[in-house]
Amino acid sequence: MSSSSKTIRRLEVVSPVPADIDIANSVDPFPIAAIAEDLNLGSKHYDLYGKYKAKVLLSVLDELQGSEDGYYVVVGGISPTPLGEGKSTTTVGLCQALGAFLDKKVITCLRQPSQGPTFGIKGGAAGAANNLLAAAIDTRIFHEASQSDKALFNRLCPPNKEGKRTFANVMFRRLQKLGISKTNPDELTPDEVKRFVRLDIDPDSITWRRVMDVNDRFLRKITVGQGPEEKGMIRETGFDISVASEIMAVLALTTSLAEMRERLGRMVIGNSNAGEPITADDLGVGGALTVLMKDAINPTLMQTLEGTPVLVHAGPFANIAHGNSSIVADKIALKLVGKGGFVVTEAGFGSDIGTEKFMNIKCRYSGLVPQCAIIVATIRALKMHGGGPEVVAGKPLDRAYITENVALVEAGCVNLSRHISNTKAYGVNVVVAINKFATDTDAEMNAVRTAALAAGAFDAVVCTHHAHGGKGAVDLGTAVQRACESQSQTLNFLYPLDFGIKEKIEAIAKSYGASGVEYSEQAEKQIKMYTKQGFSGLPICMAKTQYSFSHIPSQKGAPSGFVLPIRDVRASIGAGFIYPLVGTMSTMPGLSTRPCFFDIDIDIATGKVLGLS
Amino acid sequence: MSSSSKTIRRLEVVSPVPADIDIANSVDPFPIAAIAEDLNLGSKHYDLYGKYKAKVLLSVLDELQGSEDGYYVVVGGISPTPLGEGKSTTTVGLCQALGAFLDKKVITCLRQPSQGPTFGIKGGAAGAANNLLAAAIDTRIFHEASQSDKALFNRLCPPNKEGKRTFANVMFRRLQKLGISKTNPDELTPDEVKRFVRLDIDPDSITWRRVMDVNDRFLRKITVGQGPEEKGMIRETGFDISVASEIMAVLALTTSLAEMRERLGRMVIGNSNAGEPITADDLGVGGALTVLMKDAINPTLMQTLEGTPVLVHAGPFANIAHGNSSIVADKIALKLVGKGGFVVTEAGFGSDIGTEKFMNIKCRYSGLVPQCAIIVATIRALKMHGGGPEVVAGKPLDRAYITENVALVEAGCVNLSRHISNTKAYGVNVVVAINKFATDTDAEMNAVRTAALAAGAFDAVVCTHHAHGGKGAVDLGTAVQRACESQSQTLNFLYPLDFGIKEKIEAIAKSYGASGVEYSEQAEKQIKMYTKQGFSGLPICMAKTQYSFSHIPSQKGAPSGFVLPIRDVRASIGAGFIYPLVGTMSTMPGLSTRPCFFDIDIDIATGKVLGLS
Repeated sequence: MSSSSKTIRRLEVVSPVPADIDIANSVDPFPIAAIAEDLNLGSKHYDLYGKYKAKVLLSVLDELQGSEDGYYVVVGGISPTPLGEGKSTTTVGLCQALGAFLDKKVITCLRQPSQGPTFGIKGGAAGAANNLLAAAIDTRIFHEASQSDKALFNRLCPPNKEGKRTFANVMFRRLQKLGISKTNPDELTPDEVKRFVRLDIDPDSITWRRVMDVNDRFLRKITVGQGPEEKGMIRETGFDISVASEIMAVLALTTSLAEMRERLGRMVIGNSNAGEPITADDLGVGGALTVLMKDAINPTLMQTLEGTPVLVHAGPFANIAHGNSSIVADKIALKLVGKGGFVVTEAGFGSDIGTEKFMNIKCRYSGLVPQCAIIVATIRALKMHGGGPEVVAGKPLDRAYITENVALVEAGCVNLSRHISNTKAYGVNVVVAINKFATDTDAEMNAVRTAALAAGAFDAVVCTHHAHGGKGAVDLGTAVQRACESQSQTLNFLYPLDFGIKEKIEAIAKSYGASGVEYSEQAEKQIKMYTKQGFSGLPICMAKTQYSFSHIPSQKGAPSGFVLPIRDVRASIGAGFIYPLVGTMSTMPGLSTRPCFFDIDIDIATGKVLGLS
Repeated sequence: MSSSSKTIRRLEVVSPVPADIDIANSVDPFPIAAIAEDLNLGSKHYDLYGKYKAKVLLSVLDELQGSEDGYYVVVGGISPTPLGEGKSTTTVGLCQALGAFLDKKVITCLRQPSQGPTFGIKGGAAGAANNLLAAAIDTRIFHEASQSDKALFNRLCPPNKEGKRTFANVMFRRLQKLGISKTNPDELTPDEVKRFVRLDIDPDSITWRRVMDVNDRFLRKITVGQGPEEKGMIRETGFDISVASEIMAVLALTTSLAEMRERLGRMVIGNSNAGEPITADDLGVGGALTVLMKDAINPTLMQTLEGTPVLVHAGPFANIAHGNSSIVADKIALKLVGKGGFVVTEAGFGSDIGTEKFMNIKCRYSGLVPQCAIIVATIRALKMHGGGPEVVAGKPLDRAYITENVALVEAGCVNLSRHISNTKAYGVNVVVAINKFATDTDAEMNAVRTAALAAGAFDAVVCTHHAHGGKGAVDLGTAVQRACESQSQTLNFLYPLDFGIKEKIEAIAKSYGASGVEYSEQAEKQIKMYTKQGFSGLPICMAKTQYSFSHIPSQKGAPSGFVLPIRDVRASIGAGFIYPLVGTMSTMPGLSTRPCFFDIDIDIATGKVLGLS
């Protein structure tokens, strides 16, 4: 079969499989303009960033409004080992199969990796916007503490050349919230002036932290404001890694520039002393945040090794956020591939988290309906779920994982089966992708296929894309095509939005196998507060380990009957979800004794980066 | 006269002069590829970043190695008022005159503005690199505190698959510094292992701070490491604004990728407890920093309103760093304009600081020799130096500044005269650019011209580029051309590098009019330390106010006989200079009660940024 695309490349299959970096370096990428042309994108539809990257402009969406969408496929996985089971490689391999071997229009949608571990510069705009808001918070508290109502008002609404005071546009948002409909600052009563100028932020209520795109553990908890000019207004706070910023989640969940402006403006940074939520627009900074994000909203077009197109966009955390790439990238991709084409998007973590949030948060906001959900499984992880010894990153695998043991695999399939039935409940066809390693045997893989079909999977297919590129995922591609074509268009959410916060949490907990939910005092307090503030209609984004259906990473297989403890409940109002914390979530990684930067250098002669693996 | 360039645009002159943003919005920029083509740059010579920006690749320099340089012109100014006297507008206006009216090949070289006040995303790479190094410092101290020599060594040089330990390439830099020539880790003696693995950083000696590109005053002084996992290893430190990072100064002073790698590796972050300087390469991070900066080293090609080319590159602070745009941008520009063409580059602050550092630091490292130095003067600032009332930003100007007062101007010319004679001493022709405001009178401008010529200026010319674009700077362009053509190629430095640190400081202080220099105890201690560490051969970068020749901003005119106090002495070893602090320098600005972000928003319909001025 030959492809109609001009930018398709067939890779030579080499055995044993070379290192990733050597495979990558063996290929000269196509100019990204050629990849764009293949998608019928002209130079007015994108901005080049170098020769191999382009930002696809959001206006493409308006232009293609009338055209039909392609098939929408989401890739999740079983509960993984700490080594990862290959969701990203399966996503890419499947697209290479569809595009380079099955002659389909296809686009891969991926999250942007974080710089912390990878040394690219990513999330820069979100980080800059996050930190502008942080600076605005502390400085506002500082200025409110040292100035009278009148002085604040005079500075916030200074007279122009004609001596006339005016409100900045953004101030009308606060005025509206306060129920003040006056447009002339001079007409405000002293009480209205006071309410307008005093955000009266309760420092202890501030949930907005600063971010940095480096693994800097010493910033996890800090005290700021210790300079003499800050007059003793010290405060305990901390930094998260940039991708943990709510602004990254806003970027991923937004559907247009106008909607992003609204989401950024309504982000809540804490409460007033009276318990009212204080937003970015109360601080006057919503518009500026949008300006900082205006280029970031355009997805980045890149390519796979076999020349199929990829949109890389947004990279929200998969625990305290929803861990999916952006809605706008998926929307653009669905229009660009058109009817009969395929968009394959990855959902972070195991399906209990990634696919659940894909359906109940991302698709709820986008209105898109997937036709097929893939669950990636490995023999290794299934053996672990069947009772195999602990798998630890950096340590050699136990013998159990590299010699045949069908019974262990069969025992572990309870994990896969629950992921299948949970995912099937959304109304999609589920295809299991068995990501084959060299030591896996036919008997083991047959056991998985049997269990998957028994649990209701549409199909279960072995794939070898890691060794063979797209060619190794042709069977998966065919199965996905059949699954999409046989699927009607419905999406059954796990819970309706008008459930209370607790009801929604309990619906999700039930899907984990929990017999109940236990709330800490703090969680109860927060749920009451968010409900009172009118935020209970938001979807829920559980911050839970991906290593087990339960909150205890060591509970493998398909645990049930446990009580899920909710330690705390927080909210990303702008992004649009409430996130209960099940256990402790690290939002700032650290560096090891020998970080990978020791190996990274530049080849002065060629300018190539050395030390990648 | 008509221009041979294809991308020249003549602006319609409108009176009264519209707001900057309205002028900017009235023009559709040329595609940057057309600007590049005019400079004989093909698509292999640059990477596009959108349609109106391109990164010019450093390899252009190798390709043009054989061609002759154009004329090299630096723009400085008299000691300014807080309103600024128009160095940047004069730089741009002059280039528009040379390119659009005098038919010359010309390139403007400008510093990159900082995001803090401007809302672009700038200095991102330098900031990311700066903060990776900061994280590496604290984490290294943490790991050294909790591990034995042997455990550290095992982690730093782990056995590979064959069980053989190896050093990472960067480790050989530390081994060489320690005088250890062994290449097999297993051959190190326990004492050598100890010296190799223990940087033994003295926390109180750490000068490396974190950076952020936001005016966040609450980060000026902070305590880090307060999280429970950091086990009580708290430390006081702080954030500077990104452009204050030494890495920004390295970028500006580097001459090639290879040289940047060396400069980044030898940056000193503090001392060991034994008083030895600890470098980025000791921490193993020099190569990774270079990788983060590898795209940042390529200057950004942009354009003026009249279509002449501009290279925007690097934006180091003008006080604690040298405040000039990059050497590589100037070098590329000089080759691109070629013989008979012009490169005009701006030096930050008044000439006593900007031009002095341009000559003694930037040209010393680049080997380039300017033919002409411009000093921008305004009637307003000269009146202030002559004894006029204080000029305060945001307050209406006193009557003295908007009505004719020749005597006040004449009295103020002592400031201009000293800038002229100081600048002339470098061996360049000095052209005074009188930046005319609407209220300035002919008699006042004649007084300046007379004083300038008496002080030895090659010429003194009135210009009206702010109102008239390039057309308003044609006389200046002609004068600059004559100055360049009549100039022989020499540069007399103010001090030789083999002077001691104090001798060099005193040579600069003398040029300010000081009768002597007074060192604090701390300054004496630091000078001794840097001398002992072998760094006394570096040039000096004075951190002094630009508002006076002296250290006291209110001393206008040409003060003399004062004793210059040196409060502290610091060093940027990688960038390559020692910087004495004359008074207190803020390296992290704050936000006002009503920052400009209140006005900034996006026009949802057009995507245009609103609220710029």
